[in-house]
Amino acid sequence: MASTSFLCPKHTTLFLPTHQLSNNSVSNLTDLFVRFPNSGSVSFRSDYVSSLSHVRPKRKQLRVCANSAAQVMDQSPSKMGSMVRTIVKVDLGDRSYPIYIGSGLLDQHELLQKHVHGKRVLVVTNTTIAPLYLDKVVTALSDGNPNVTVDSVILPDGEQFKNMDTLMKVFDKAIESRLDRRCTFVALGGGVIGDMCGFAAASFLRGVNFIQIPTTVMAQVDSSVGGKTGINHRLGKNLIGAFYQPQCVLIDTNTLNTLPERELASGLAEVIKYGLIRDADFFKWQEKNMSALLARDPSALAYAIKRSCENKAEVVSLDEKESGVRATLNLGHTFGHAIETSYGYGQWLHGEAIAAGMVMAVDMSYRLGWIDDSIVNRVHKILQEAKLPTAPPEMMTVEMFKSVMAVDKKVADGLLRLILLKGPLGNCVFTGDYDRKALDETLQAFCKS
Amino acid sequence: MASTSFLCPKHTTLFLPTHQLSNNSVSNLTDLFVRFPNSGSVSFRSDYVSSLSHVRPKRKQLRVCANSAAQVMDQSPSKMGSMVRTIVKVDLGDRSYPIYIGSGLLDQHELLQKHVHGKRVLVVTNTTIAPLYLDKVVTALSDGNPNVTVDSVILPDGEQFKNMDTLMKVFDKAIESRLDRRCTFVALGGGVIGDMCGFAAASFLRGVNFIQIPTTVMAQVDSSVGGKTGINHRLGKNLIGAFYQPQCVLIDTNTLNTLPERELASGLAEVIKYGLIRDADFFKWQEKNMSALLARDPSALAYAIKRSCENKAEVVSLDEKESGVRATLNLGHTFGHAIETSYGYGQWLHGEAIAAGMVMAVDMSYRLGWIDDSIVNRVHKILQEAKLPTAPPEMMTVEMFKSVMAVDKKVADGLLRLILLKGPLGNCVFTGDYDRKALDETLQAFCKS
Ligand SMILES: NC(=O)c1ccc[n+]([C@@H]2O[C@H](COP(=O)([O-])OP(=O)(O)OC[C@H]3O[C@@H](n4cnc5c(N)ncnc54)[C@H](O)[C@@H]3O)[C@@H](O)[C@H]2O)c1
Ligand SMILES: NC(=O)c1ccc[n+]([C@@H]2O[C@H](COP(=O)([O-])OP(=O)(O)OC[C@H]3O[C@@H](n4cnc5c(N)ncnc54)[C@H](O)[C@@H]3O)[C@@H](O)[C@H]2O)c1
Ligand SMILES: [Zn+2]
Ligand SMILES: [Zn+2]
Repeated sequence: MASTSFLCPKHTTLFLPTHQLSNNSVSNLTDLFVRFPNSGSVSFRSDYVSSLSHVRPKRKQLRVCANSAAQVMDQSPSKMGSMVRTIVKVDLGDRSYPIYIGSGLLDQHELLQKHVHGKRVLVVTNTTIAPLYLDKVVTALSDGNPNVTVDSVILPDGEQFKNMDTLMKVFDKAIESRLDRRCTFVALGGGVIGDMCGFAAASFLRGVNFIQIPTTVMAQVDSSVGGKTGINHRLGKNLIGAFYQPQCVLIDTNTLNTLPERELASGLAEVIKYGLIRDADFFKWQEKNMSALLARDPSALAYAIKRSCENKAEVVSLDEKESGVRATLNLGHTFGHAIETSYGYGQWLHGEAIAAGMVMAVDMSYRLGWIDDSIVNRVHKILQEAKLPTAPPEMMTVEMFKSVMAVDKKVADGLLRLILLKGPLGNCVFTGDYDRKALDETLQAFCKS
Repeated sequence: MASTSFLCPKHTTLFLPTHQLSNNSVSNLTDLFVRFPNSGSVSFRSDYVSSLSHVRPKRKQLRVCANSAAQVMDQSPSKMGSMVRTIVKVDLGDRSYPIYIGSGLLDQHELLQKHVHGKRVLVVTNTTIAPLYLDKVVTALSDGNPNVTVDSVILPDGEQFKNMDTLMKVFDKAIESRLDRRCTFVALGGGVIGDMCGFAAASFLRGVNFIQIPTTVMAQVDSSVGGKTGINHRLGKNLIGAFYQPQCVLIDTNTLNTLPERELASGLAEVIKYGLIRDADFFKWQEKNMSALLARDPSALAYAIKRSCENKAEVVSLDEKESGVRATLNLGHTFGHAIETSYGYGQWLHGEAIAAGMVMAVDMSYRLGWIDDSIVNRVHKILQEAKLPTAPPEMMTVEMFKSVMAVDKKVADGLLRLILLKGPLGNCVFTGDYDRKALDETLQAFCKS
């Protein structure tokens, strides 16, 4: 197969040939770089370049671009192997920021350091992640940088600690350490840590610099993009918070090596979601590469994360404060939320609940005649491969769904709007305008009573 | 004296003739309106118009303008007397908002109502203010507006309650009342309530609409302008918060009738500050009208508040996030902060401490040869008239000032920057470049030991 050279005038975009990702033996981003050390002219296989045709026309306010800053200066040539990364730029005017994605990025100390403002850093992490990665991050922040002092605060692990009491521990530490406005907060962990640290950074002295180092797939593909930060209230999730954008997001795919399998799969549910709502080519890529993802192939992970971040960043750029299109990111979430609420948070992970929720939304879309059955089958198949549920827990009843979704009340007002698939793969709508019968049938089909 | 007609092409600015303000017998804004019902052609005394020459050339990013929306439609002609108001527009791009100033504005129900978004309102106030004004505000919000539901939360009164525990009571109430993103929070009270309610509005569901009804001079001329919101931490004041702008600020000068005298005077310290740092004509106006202000003449109050808001709004428009010029608003605050800290918060009100602090800053400016002694004398005189202190409490020592101001440490680094007067009345600098001797002499002059 012929090699096609492709060069974006502004950025050099390093796309991975599809076959290499489905074929563990060949390569990862690192290998590819080593073979094409001059990032100014990266070679592409023509079979991959063709898939670029999916890219939607960019509007004026929307410039999401991925580029590979392949050449990074570093003292040690032996580190060259870990120096490839993909950059997704989230474009939000003067709050724009880069997402760096790659394997071994935490060993590239200059990457983090260039986004630290001031001389003081506070790393916020938890009891599970601290023993795994805190030293590495402290080293990355302070290596060759004697002016920088790094403090850290280690929070208890778990969604149940995502609250005001735990948040106060972050403020206590920041204030006791006498941090000033020029300090930087670094979130090291999953979505719980990212959301809490982000809100702390937004509120400490009315806003300090903030860097995200997400360490779960969920955080890497979803919570670290978009600027939503916050904590739970005893009466509901994420009710208190801020929209606050980081200076940068640094995703080292190596951190996923320690992630429990269920957490990995849970994050992949959101990855699959992006394909379904707006990116058919990405969905097809996932169909071919699911085993590589589960095997934590760094290249496959990097690509899936990059493409997910691009999709989310595009949606967020269009609708930063969630007034419209951003709602489509909630495919499966209304059904999933009913599962999480009825079954009890913590029984099923978020991604597991929304996997089942997506199956239900897809089923309903099919009943409405909006999609054909091949999509239904492909969704089942890919979720099964990802080891995710394809139906709600057995204990769920129609009534449980209805009461949480407030179906009766909301549908009467024409208010229960759902994200449903419509048309060819990769298209969805957010609508309250559907035949109520389809919803009832879906609920009945998935519940024993 | 001849009457001069003056009409701003874009806005009609209703300035009050100076003599009317110093002469309680004559008028207030209302009277003036009744006499000049056509707001399009307001008459001015030439002696006042001349003072307009002080207005600085407006820069492009800075458009602070005051206009008098004198004609408001209302059912009852008998209400006409209360329908004059001044509007100061705070220009912050898409976060711009109006400050309405006048006597009886809480009786103009359409004013508040047009800034309420959605159907749900939460009024945040305290145990002192609720019995005085809560009913009035609830009526203003809901009168003729059956769609709107108003809830309220009454917090304990006092700076010691400006903390996270009290803030949580606002969230509890909002969540128990099932408020959604389209609700509006209304702050009814002084700076403590305004700061807390503003931070709650910034954080509830990541940001809801917010209206300020400040009821102290301090809140009306200072804390309600500029978007700083927040709470205290046990280790320091205002350490946790957000920059968050309201939809509007509504200042009914009638609310000041119940304000304790010391609180009134404390707020006037900030008013005097604006004259000293940037508005000589305003200072001169105050020299003539201090007794009217202390007598709570509504016109005098409205004018002083308007001019203060304009000055603060101009500074804030230039420097929303406090990186430079905004610091000049802290004239007297470094010395004042030392007094508050050493003497104990609550002993002296904030305005009292900064009054003494301004005297010290002025004394030091004089020792540096930067201002002549007439300014020193005028500052003493006006503060005495306003019943404000002109020296720190007797117990203050040079060492107390030095340790809070961290003089020795900071001056060594050249870091203790102070706001000092320099040049003719109405000019100041924010600088660390001064003869250290002058600072020592000032401290010694004002302390027994
Ligand atoms: N802000 C947003 O837009 C957004 C979007 C989606 C989800 N969220 C929030 O994110 C949270 C869920 O995030 P999550 O799924 O990452 O959960 P999490 O943060 O609780 O992490 C899951 C578990 O994995 C552990 N862990 C994290 N990284 C690890 C690693 N590399 N190795 C080993 N263990 C590791 C964590 O300590 C935790 O026990 C929820 O609170 C949700 O509300 C926010
Ligand atoms: N956000 C800012 O930019 C900014 C600027 C200056 C001050 N502040 C903050 O403002 C606070 C001080 O504000 P303050 O001086 O208004 O104090 P405050 O809010 O405590 O009010 C002073 C007292 O007057 C009472 N009161 C208020 N209005 C009244 C009325 N109309 N009639 C009778 N009693 C009334 C209050 O209940 C209180 O007891 C401090 O917390 C300070 O940090 C903020
Ligand atoms: Zn989700
Ligand atoms: Zn002040």
